[in-house]
Amino acid sequence: MTITLYDLAGADPDRRFSPYCWRARLALAHKRLDVDAVPWRFTEKERIAFSGQGLVPVIVDDSAIVHDSWKIALYLEETYPDRPSLFGGKGAMALLRFVQGCTDGILQPAIGRMLMGDLPAVIDDRDRAYFRESREKRFGMTLEAVSADRDKRLPDFRKSLQPIRIPLADAPYLGGPSPTYADYIVFGAFQWARCTSPFRLLAEDDPVLAWRKRIEALFGGLAGRAPAFD
Amino acid sequence: MTITLYDLAGADPDRRFSPYCWRARLALAHKRLDVDAVPWRFTEKERIAFSGQGLVPVIVDDSAIVHDSWKIALYLEETYPDRPSLFGGKGAMALLRFVQGCTDGILQPAIGRMLMGDLPAVIDDRDRAYFRESREKRFGMTLEAVSADRDKRLPDFRKSLQPIRIPLADAPYLGGPSPTYADYIVFGAFQWARCTSPFRLLAEDDPVLAWRKRIEALFGGLAGRAPAFD
Repeated sequence: MTITLYDLAGADPDRRFSPYCWRARLALAHKRLDVDAVPWRFTEKERIAFSGQGLVPVIVDDSAIVHDSWKIALYLEETYPDRPSLFGGKGAMALLRFVQGCTDGILQPAIGRMLMGDLPAVIDDRDRAYFRESREKRFGMTLEAVSADRDKRLPDFRKSLQPIRIPLADAPYLGGPSPTYADYIVFGAFQWARCTSPFRLLAEDDPVLAWRKRIEALFGGLAGRAPAFD
Repeated sequence: MTITLYDLAGADPDRRFSPYCWRARLALAHKRLDVDAVPWRFTEKERIAFSGQGLVPVIVDDSAIVHDSWKIALYLEETYPDRPSLFGGKGAMALLRFVQGCTDGILQPAIGRMLMGDLPAVIDDRDRAYFRESREKRFGMTLEAVSADRDKRLPDFRKSLQPIRIPLADAPYLGGPSPTYADYIVFGAFQWARCTSPFRLLAEDDPVLAWRKRIEALFGGLAGRAPAFD
């Protein structure tokens, strides 16, 4: 039984760049489930109206319809308990919400500010006006202005990644000896960046880059072979 | 067998204010171990020289000498496996390093900046010159100047706690239905603040405050009854 994932795509239908969709994509791969990741654009609200809302990721698994990346992760862990554990136990599950909070609240906003100006170039024609208008309203300035000072922001951004480097000093993955959903949450933010912008967020010798490349290599290079700028 | 904990104290020997010592104190209580938490001051380096370094927390458990709050937590979890689990499983253990990274790298520096100016009033006479000199060198300004703009910083600080509120929307503790070492790591930062400064970091209706009070109430009110400003 193949699961359908509605997955945000750019002008190139193979360019999938939503950090939240990458969380779901890697969670599905972690559970060794067959997936049809269909391209979807911001303005195609009616195509996912059956889910009762207008954002991706949405999955359809036989009769189950699940939206929201965290709810999808919970659904997969509960529905496929005999597949590799995504969370690494109940105690870890609670902490994943903290990892998610830090990623959604700190890491992704910081990354987003640096790549906003590059997004119009990769977004589908149909989405460009919607994206620019909604985001410029949110930021109160043009997308290009949001990321204009990114070179100046970069040193502080790189310093701010220390909380990721601490677990990576002990183990190859944030989840420990093998990857868990914690890795996919944080990786989604970096994958968003590499799929949309040529701007180099990470220094060549940063252990975060080595970790990112380890995640890119998982599942036959699923994330690594996606259209990206590096 | 009573374990000795060398625990940073202020002018009032009952005022224990190190965030790292609180992590150890609560970890010991979580394991239901008998503890003699002896007061120690910054300048008493020779008293803990037997540990091979000059910082607290240090514990002495029979012939074992352990320093560094994370190493103490690991030691307790490994040495007392039949006592209540501090980490909540192997998968959680890896993520605790992430929680620690966020706390050490983001939360505590943000809190520290707001309470620096209040520290000289609670610190022991013997430590005052050492503390002021070492910290003013680090910050490049007087302690009072470091926290002079705290009223202006407060709204952004409170917003920055969102990653803590997300897990607390699901469960009473960061570790889930019951507290784990994740709670003690983050709590240490807030306990540091309430033991040293009258400045109100948390709004009355903040779920983070309700959680902080739940941790204060644990183990017969161990943290709650410590000398503090609220």
